[in-house]
Amino acid sequence: MTVIGLLHPGEMGAAIGRCLVGAGHTVLWDPAGRGTATASRAASAGLTAAAALPPGDRLTALVRRSDVILSVCPPHAALDVARGVADHGFTGIFTDANAISPATARRVAGLVREGGAIYVDGGIIGPPPEAPGHTRLYLSGAGAGCVRDLFAGTAVDARLAEGQEFAASALKIAYAAWTKGTAALILAVRALARAEGVEQALLAEWAMSQPALEQRSERAAGSAASKGWRWVAEMREIAASMSAAGLPTGFHEAAAEIFRRPPG
Amino acid sequence: MTVIGLLHPGEMGAAIGRCLVGAGHTVLWDPAGRGTATASRAASAGLTAAAALPPGDRLTALVRRSDVILSVCPPHAALDVARGVADHGFTGIFTDANAISPATARRVAGLVREGGAIYVDGGIIGPPPEAPGHTRLYLSGAGAGCVRDLFAGTAVDARLAEGQEFAASALKIAYAAWTKGTAALILAVRALARAEGVEQALLAEWAMSQPALEQRSERAAGSAASKGWRWVAEMREIAASMSAAGLPTGFHEAAAEIFRRPPG
Repeated sequence: MTVIGLLHPGEMGAAIGRCLVGAGHTVLWDPAGRGTATASRAASAGLTAAAALPPGDRLTALVRRSDVILSVCPPHAALDVARGVADHGFTGIFTDANAISPATARRVAGLVREGGAIYVDGGIIGPPPEAPGHTRLYLSGAGAGCVRDLFAGTAVDARLAEGQEFAASALKIAYAAWTKGTAALILAVRALARAEGVEQALLAEWAMSQPALEQRSERAAGSAASKGWRWVAEMREIAASMSAAGLPTGFHEAAAEIFRRPPG
Repeated sequence: MTVIGLLHPGEMGAAIGRCLVGAGHTVLWDPAGRGTATASRAASAGLTAAAALPPGDRLTALVRRSDVILSVCPPHAALDVARGVADHGFTGIFTDANAISPATARRVAGLVREGGAIYVDGGIIGPPPEAPGHTRLYLSGAGAGCVRDLFAGTAVDARLAEGQEFAASALKIAYAAWTKGTAALILAVRALARAEGVEQALLAEWAMSQPALEQRSERAAGSAASKGWRWVAEMREIAASMSAAGLPTGFHEAAAEIFRRPPG
């Protein structure tokens, strides 16, 4: 029975929180400044609002009651979330499970360690967990086993990522570099064909020689329209990771530009 | 019965020439400055060396005897080939079937038209033609039907690309933007995972959720090692096409950088 702070549960965070509640843990979230959509998502997942805690600074109360804090947020917010938690005196296990580069994860680790917490690196691959077998939470660094064990028997397949301290972030970034990089590329390719007046000809050629691509491009357009705004920062994290490894940044700088555009 | 000049038959050019010879046409090539590998490839495809023509300037003789000239070469050489043919007074149908941007194709068209020739735009999708059904030669612009008809009954599926004058080049470029862009991207992704020490973890995750990717990355590595040098200029043509359409150039600038690297 562990108390886990989830802070601001979005779609992914709420689904993970529901799994933890199902495993018998208490999951706290912070309603400060959040709308009714977040509140009803959190309530339906069985999470406990920090508003129900003693009055005063709710984030301080949440941080003091939590053994583990799990950061699941858009990648551009990861450092701010970590800073907020560290500033409120968190000394438990902080797990960042966001799509951030190993270098950003190292900065997050530095922030929370300065505040006295233990850092465990994480990376989520797959959709918000509902049924088992589709969503993996990779974990690395000292203490990773404790976080993994919280998910025993849940729909989250929590696993240790072998290797260096930030292996979980590195694995997530490399995985997303393909999935989201190709989503952006296929949108650019169709836009190019459209601009040149050969979109129908390209679809006809694809139907013959690359039969999965038309549907793949339609799926990419749908995902980009609904979630592309959140992927811009992720593409920048991937580009920074490529650069740190001496590889070209252009694929994911271009992908960020594609996801920044209005759909159409 | 048409006389077709093929100039410098590489693997693709020789296979296309063999198809044309099989359809009863005479196919001339220019042995000037070419090695024994090209000569034996041309001979086995049934092509006629311009050396067998009356003495003097062999390219002039080839150009004078050819009704149609088909340019099949690495994209960085396309303008030089066109210039050489134009300078030697060609006034038949010149078809550029190379992986060049619509803008480069327009420059090729300008060069050969200044010399008095008719320009037909082309683009090849698929492997060197052996059996029917795998290789398409797209053609566009006035005169495209004449070039298409040369291939009747052969393993080359020659088709008109509907749309603007340079639709065939645009279609080829858009098609290759995906196939070769993703080949470069998957090599970069594996190199990133390797640099971060998570390559085996990535392969294990791919085996679960993206089971085609390990093999795809191996194929990409093999192709890049043997043909990557030729794709660098093609990636630049694609990047230029993206730029002309107001789209980001980074995917294919990065791809050029990947294909320029020594394999490993």
